[in-house]
Amino acid sequence: MEAKYDVLAIGNAIVDVIAHCDDDFLVKENIHKGAMNLVDAQRAEALYSAMGPAIEASGGSAGNTAAGLASFGAKTAYAGKVASDQLGKIFTHDIRAIGVHFDTPALDDTPPTARSMIFVTPDGERSMNTFLGACTELGPEDIDEDLVASAGITYFEGYLWDPPRAKDAIRRAAEISHANGRSVAMTLSDPFCVDRYRNEFLELMRQGTVDIVFANESELKSLYQTASFEEGLDAIRQDCALAAVTRSERGSVIVSRQENHHVDAMPVEKVVDTTGAGDLYAAGFLFGVTQGFNMADCGRIGGLAAAEVIQHVGPRPQVSLADLLAQSGIAD
Amino acid sequence: MEAKYDVLAIGNAIVDVIAHCDDDFLVKENIHKGAMNLVDAQRAEALYSAMGPAIEASGGSAGNTAAGLASFGAKTAYAGKVASDQLGKIFTHDIRAIGVHFDTPALDDTPPTARSMIFVTPDGERSMNTFLGACTELGPEDIDEDLVASAGITYFEGYLWDPPRAKDAIRRAAEISHANGRSVAMTLSDPFCVDRYRNEFLELMRQGTVDIVFANESELKSLYQTASFEEGLDAIRQDCALAAVTRSERGSVIVSRQENHHVDAMPVEKVVDTTGAGDLYAAGFLFGVTQGFNMADCGRIGGLAAAEVIQHVGPRPQVSLADLLAQSGIAD
Repeated sequence: MEAKYDVLAIGNAIVDVIAHCDDDFLVKENIHKGAMNLVDAQRAEALYSAMGPAIEASGGSAGNTAAGLASFGAKTAYAGKVASDQLGKIFTHDIRAIGVHFDTPALDDTPPTARSMIFVTPDGERSMNTFLGACTELGPEDIDEDLVASAGITYFEGYLWDPPRAKDAIRRAAEISHANGRSVAMTLSDPFCVDRYRNEFLELMRQGTVDIVFANESELKSLYQTASFEEGLDAIRQDCALAAVTRSERGSVIVSRQENHHVDAMPVEKVVDTTGAGDLYAAGFLFGVTQGFNMADCGRIGGLAAAEVIQHVGPRPQVSLADLLAQSGIAD
Repeated sequence: MEAKYDVLAIGNAIVDVIAHCDDDFLVKENIHKGAMNLVDAQRAEALYSAMGPAIEASGGSAGNTAAGLASFGAKTAYAGKVASDQLGKIFTHDIRAIGVHFDTPALDDTPPTARSMIFVTPDGERSMNTFLGACTELGPEDIDEDLVASAGITYFEGYLWDPPRAKDAIRRAAEISHANGRSVAMTLSDPFCVDRYRNEFLELMRQGTVDIVFANESELKSLYQTASFEEGLDAIRQDCALAAVTRSERGSVIVSRQENHHVDAMPVEKVVDTTGAGDLYAAGFLFGVTQGFNMADCGRIGGLAAAEVIQHVGPRPQVSLADLLAQSGIAD
C-alpha cells in the first residue's frame, strides 16, 4: 500500500520562548549550556522573571522536523499534546499552516501547553529550559493506528522518554508501523537525555524497534559511554540498520553495516541560533530517504536544512526548503 | 519636582503575530496594505486560518515606544490593558524585562489580550490586523494619578480613540500632567485612524491638550485633508507647540512656530520589516527631548532608533539603543 504520509513525526509539542543572553547569565542561573534542561512550574516562573524580552515561536524537536519535511514538500503528519490554551492554539496553527497534518486531541484543562525558555548566547549556542506541561499527558490513546499504518516512516524524539506514558505510545506505534511494512526512526535528542534512558534506547535499537537513528557526536558518545567518536560509530553500526551522526561544522557521518559516508557541512556565513539544527538535519535526511536519494545525498539535504535554520533566530525554516533544494544542485 | 519617570507611555497593549506573505495575499484577503485594519473576533479567526506560520512578539505602538525609551536608558512607565491570559503574561514580561514600569491591572476574564496579525510583504511593508480584545476595557480608573504627575512627558497613541473609554483616560491624564507642569505628546498613529477622529485630534491640539505631535507624511496629509506636504506642515506648526513629521527614507521634519529642521534618515542596508518604525522614531525623539538635546539631534536620535527596528522582524529593538547612540557620534 502506498504511504498516505511520507513521515509521521511524534514529539513533545512545545512553544519556544527565545531570548539572547551572555554566558555569565547561564552560569548565574545554573543552566547547563547547550543542553535541554527540564524545569518544573516553579523554576519556569523564576527563570522567566530573570529572562530578558523574548519572542515566541512554535518548536519541539519532532515538530521542527515535521515543519522541515513539509517545507521540502513531503506529506507529513505530526502527533503531540498541547492544551487548549493560547500557546496550544499557536502551536496548532503554525504546524498546520506549513502543511502538516495534526489532529492529536488537545487537553481541555491543565497542565498548560509546554514551553521551552531558550537562551541564545553570542556564539549562537542555545540552552533550553523546558516545562513539559501538557506533554506529560501524551499516551497510547493519542496514537491513531490508521495514521501510523499509512506513514512510510514513523519518527520520534528520545525526549519522549521524559513524560510518563509517551514511551508506551511510541512502542505501540512502532509495532503498528512494522506490522505494515513501514520503518521507524528516532533521534537520541540530547546527551543528558541519553544518559537518563541509555539502556532503554539501546534496547529499542537492538530489538529492532527502531531502524534509523539520528544522533550528534555527544549523544553518540553518551550512548556508548566512550570518549572516542570512532568507537561510538563502530558500535552504532552494529546496533541499528542505519545511523546518521551529525558533527556541527564537520558535517555528518552515515553508517550502516554495509555503508560508510562522510558528508561535509554546508557553508554558513554566521551561526545566529543553533536551535533546530539537528531537527532540520533529520528533516532533510528523511526527505531524502522518502524520495529515494542515496545516503550521501540524504546527508547533504540534511546539512542544507540545518544550515538554513542556524542562520536565523527560531527553530523552523523561514524559506521554502523545496526551493533551497532545487537551487542547491543536490537533486540534479 | 524632578520627574520620577522621563516618559509615561499609554497605549493599546498588543501581542504581534507576524508572518510573511506576498502582495496577492493582501488583495485576496482584502487587507489595506500599510494600514492598521481593525478586526472583530470572527474576522480574526478567519484571517489566522489563512495566515502562514508566524512568530509572536510583544508590540503595541506606545508599548514599542516605551521599550525603545527604556533601551536608550530613559526612566519609562507604560499603561495599557491586557487580560490575565498567556498573551497578557507575555506582554507583561517583555515590557518589564526591558526595564519599563508597568502595573496596569490585568483583566481577570474576557475579552482576551489584544493581538495584531501583521503581514510583512517582500518590500518590508507591514499590514496590521488588530483584534483589540482587552484593550477595549481601558478607562480612566486605570490611570494612576501619581504616576502621571511624576512623569516628565505623558505620551499616548491616537489608536486609543478606537476603544470606547480610553480617550477619557487620556483626557484625565493630560489634565494631571499639565497641572503638574509636565508635557503631553501624542502620535497620530495611522492615516485611517486620523480619518476616523480628525476633529477630535485637531481639538486636542488646538485646545492645548497635546503639546508635541508625531505624525508621518500620510497622517499629516490626512489630518489636514491636503495632498500638499508643505501645506500640512504650515498647518500643524500653528496647531501645536512642536511637531515631528517622519518621511521614511526622506528623514523627518521638526517644526514649531519658531523652528524648522530637516533631518536626514539614517542609512539602512535592507528594510526587512517596517513595523515599529514610527514608534521607535518617537522613542528616540522623546529620549532626546528628556535629555535636553536640540531639536535636530532629537530627530537624528529618532531616525537612529527607527533604522534599527526596520532592519529585523519585530517591532522592538534587538540591541541596546543606548549603545547604538553612543557609537553614533550624535551625543558627542
